[in-house]
Amino acid sequence: MSYRVLLKTTGSTMLLEAAVLVLMTAVSLLYRESVVPFLITIAVLVAVGLPLSLIRTKKRAFYSREGYVTVALVWLVLSAFGALPFFLNGGFGNYVSCFFEAVSGFTTTGSTVLSEIESLPRGILLWRSTTHVIGGMGILVLVSAIIPNGESRAMHMMRAEMPGPTAGKLVPRLSQSNKILYGMYFGLILMEIVSLKIAGVSLYECVTISFSTAGTGGFAVTNDSIAGYSAAVEIIVSIYMLLFSLNFALYFLLLTGKIRQIGRDQEFRLFFLIIFAAVLAVAINIRSVYGSFWTGLRHALFTVASTSSTTGFVVTDYDRLWPTFSKCVVLLLTLTGACAGSTGGAIKVSRLLILGKSVTKEIRQIIHPRSVNVIRVDDGPGSVEMVHSVLRFFPAYVFCLIAGILIVSLDNFDFTTSFTAALTCIGNVGPGLGVVGPVGNFSGFSNLSKIVLSFLMLIGRLEVMPILILFSPSSWRKS
Amino acid sequence: MSYRVLLKTTGSTMLLEAAVLVLMTAVSLLYRESVVPFLITIAVLVAVGLPLSLIRTKKRAFYSREGYVTVALVWLVLSAFGALPFFLNGGFGNYVSCFFEAVSGFTTTGSTVLSEIESLPRGILLWRSTTHVIGGMGILVLVSAIIPNGESRAMHMMRAEMPGPTAGKLVPRLSQSNKILYGMYFGLILMEIVSLKIAGVSLYECVTISFSTAGTGGFAVTNDSIAGYSAAVEIIVSIYMLLFSLNFALYFLLLTGKIRQIGRDQEFRLFFLIIFAAVLAVAINIRSVYGSFWTGLRHALFTVASTSSTTGFVVTDYDRLWPTFSKCVVLLLTLTGACAGSTGGAIKVSRLLILGKSVTKEIRQIIHPRSVNVIRVDDGPGSVEMVHSVLRFFPAYVFCLIAGILIVSLDNFDFTTSFTAALTCIGNVGPGLGVVGPVGNFSGFSNLSKIVLSFLMLIGRLEVMPILILFSPSSWRKS
Repeated sequence: MSYRVLLKTTGSTMLLEAAVLVLMTAVSLLYRESVVPFLITIAVLVAVGLPLSLIRTKKRAFYSREGYVTVALVWLVLSAFGALPFFLNGGFGNYVSCFFEAVSGFTTTGSTVLSEIESLPRGILLWRSTTHVIGGMGILVLVSAIIPNGESRAMHMMRAEMPGPTAGKLVPRLSQSNKILYGMYFGLILMEIVSLKIAGVSLYECVTISFSTAGTGGFAVTNDSIAGYSAAVEIIVSIYMLLFSLNFALYFLLLTGKIRQIGRDQEFRLFFLIIFAAVLAVAINIRSVYGSFWTGLRHALFTVASTSSTTGFVVTDYDRLWPTFSKCVVLLLTLTGACAGSTGGAIKVSRLLILGKSVTKEIRQIIHPRSVNVIRVDDGPGSVEMVHSVLRFFPAYVFCLIAGILIVSLDNFDFTTSFTAALTCIGNVGPGLGVVGPVGNFSGFSNLSKIVLSFLMLIGRLEVMPILILFSPSSWRKS
Repeated sequence: MSYRVLLKTTGSTMLLEAAVLVLMTAVSLLYRESVVPFLITIAVLVAVGLPLSLIRTKKRAFYSREGYVTVALVWLVLSAFGALPFFLNGGFGNYVSCFFEAVSGFTTTGSTVLSEIESLPRGILLWRSTTHVIGGMGILVLVSAIIPNGESRAMHMMRAEMPGPTAGKLVPRLSQSNKILYGMYFGLILMEIVSLKIAGVSLYECVTISFSTAGTGGFAVTNDSIAGYSAAVEIIVSIYMLLFSLNFALYFLLLTGKIRQIGRDQEFRLFFLIIFAAVLAVAINIRSVYGSFWTGLRHALFTVASTSSTTGFVVTDYDRLWPTFSKCVVLLLTLTGACAGSTGGAIKVSRLLILGKSVTKEIRQIIHPRSVNVIRVDDGPGSVEMVHSVLRFFPAYVFCLIAGILIVSLDNFDFTTSFTAALTCIGNVGPGLGVVGPVGNFSGFSNLSKIVLSFLMLIGRLEVMPILILFSPSSWRKS
């Protein structure tokens, strides 16, 4: 293990976090709120992060496992320090609850321990939404966009942090590629802010909602999420949630004029097929719930977009109002999630595609044992190693989910609550059903459950392996 | 598709079913009950089955897919006709309910549509338990033990019907191997009957309980399953449920004196580790539920054995009495199931073992990219094709489960009921939670749900592929 690189990278990201908190302090000053929680956190981050960031690293090979361990550790450390402003401000409960909230932010889950949100300082709530922006595109993606840090080293970290079965680059140089990614990301955020402003939302709320949409996070600044806003806002947010759940490589294709390639993207097509089918099925199933079919359709679109994108904004208490079938559709989307290379979470549509093709391959092989079956991914045959990696990812994901359900169930909430709490956390969605339903929150869980759910969120966001490798003793042994 | 072999095999098994029903008729006569339902069913089976069984087949290659289709069709046909005595007798509801009950019997699920069992004729209840015995070891295994029918043809059918990732033979000749299997099977059944008789149970109940245990089915002849019997009976049934969930190849090793090999069997060891851990965890979790720790321990052992073996007998209303954690353990066992090559269902411990090893292989490969990682199954390296087949089996199983949950949820029972109904049916266990809990039944579901749940039971018992291939249009095309 290359401890120097590990510590240096952690130190650099801590300084980056401190820099973002300086912006939050400025906002707090603007609103004449207390800046003490931010100042203390910044001081701690600089005191620890600065010496670490000055460590000199030797030029030597950087291995895949070191990338995984570094990414896992950076995410843990940033969450641990990112929880400090919540803790120092108060209103979130004990430190474990603040840690849960920070992990939920960085992993873009959006599950909260808060029942009363509106009375909190605006600076604190902005920080809460900003964690979604940082975590959405990736902390180390951001670091590599700012500080070029060796191509192979950064690529190993990227691979561990980027969502989806493969990590690609838009342009040959990685730091350049990440700059483009963040450019498109902030472009989309700006477009959403403007759209919401036109729809009559206050600037502060435009920014926080857009930040939470961008990371497909779901933290809101009002107690009833998006339910209190107009129908126009509901539709704008629906559209942007879907836009942020697409592979960002598609936007690069759009910008470079390769529009035909977008239409050929299998994941893109399957994703919209899922959205279309889910909205239609739910709208028909809930047709008698809201007086008008169109209100039902709008709520169906919003909830499907919110869940598929793994954002978790809420406009209606579907746990209480909707029939079981529609709730099952929502839970299924909580499992499947968004596209690879987006800011969304869960299993990802591209993995579903590969899993589905693997199953049909098995069937074809029994029917025609002598035929050669190759799984085609987009226009070429998928690499065998990638397909097998997806086939191993799926049970790993399910095992982690089941372990989470078992531990959380020790709190003795009902089965639906225990099951959906773990499912929504590992999928980085936000709400589940029962106690953690669309109008509920996670404050009632024990400290143990909150820690386990936090790790489920990290496992989901970093796609299982980095966290397992961080805790695997053999990755710390000398090779 | 070799239609002649398909139809001939179906015809032969129908005659076999008629022969078993002749025995049931004899029992009904003994108890002076109406034999009309049996006689009509026998007449129909012989009228349809006899001409089919006389079809002459040509000697030609028999393909794997024909084995799968034949097995799937035979199971469907036997269930459809096996439901007739229930339908003609009455008390089970409409024909769909009777079909559900028959499929539940043959697939050794033991889920019932009955709330009132004790008032039904004894002959009918014996037939209900007998379906477990037939389905437990396999219908075509029985056929091949009686009518030697070409080694490769029978092997293809065996592979589709035998539970577990690999289908082995005990001795080189398959029909001989199947005779030995059925011999050990009836030997164990006889031992259980004698044990229960010594514990003071009436002969009729000894036989029906033993039949239902043997197939790891779970149909009882009393309204409260096993709860009304003595503690001794509870312990005897616990032990036999576990014995019937072991790979029968182990008994052959025992009989041939190769005892050391049994202890080296990885699945055997993991199975007992799971049982031990589950019993201990549940017993501690429910320690304050039943006055005495020992009663709790006994009920924990029984319920864990009943669920792991996928029998589904019940001694206590764990849905109402137990904390959520213990209920989650029961649901987890409903997913994992028994050993391969047993009469038990669900995913099977040997598949879990391979899935677990695949995940740790992925971790090892990231940590040590240059090392060669081979998944070892028992003493040798597992065949790559078998490992991949298991990796593809798991998502196929989960996809079928999810599709089942979605359709069943249209009946608008609560989520826990919809989820556990599909889970317990595909796992061939019996009870779930909520409406289908340990004291509930499946009578409240719509016809559509009952049909879907029936197919889930068949998918579970035949391990997914045969049913998918039966409904795959390309398996019916000329090759």
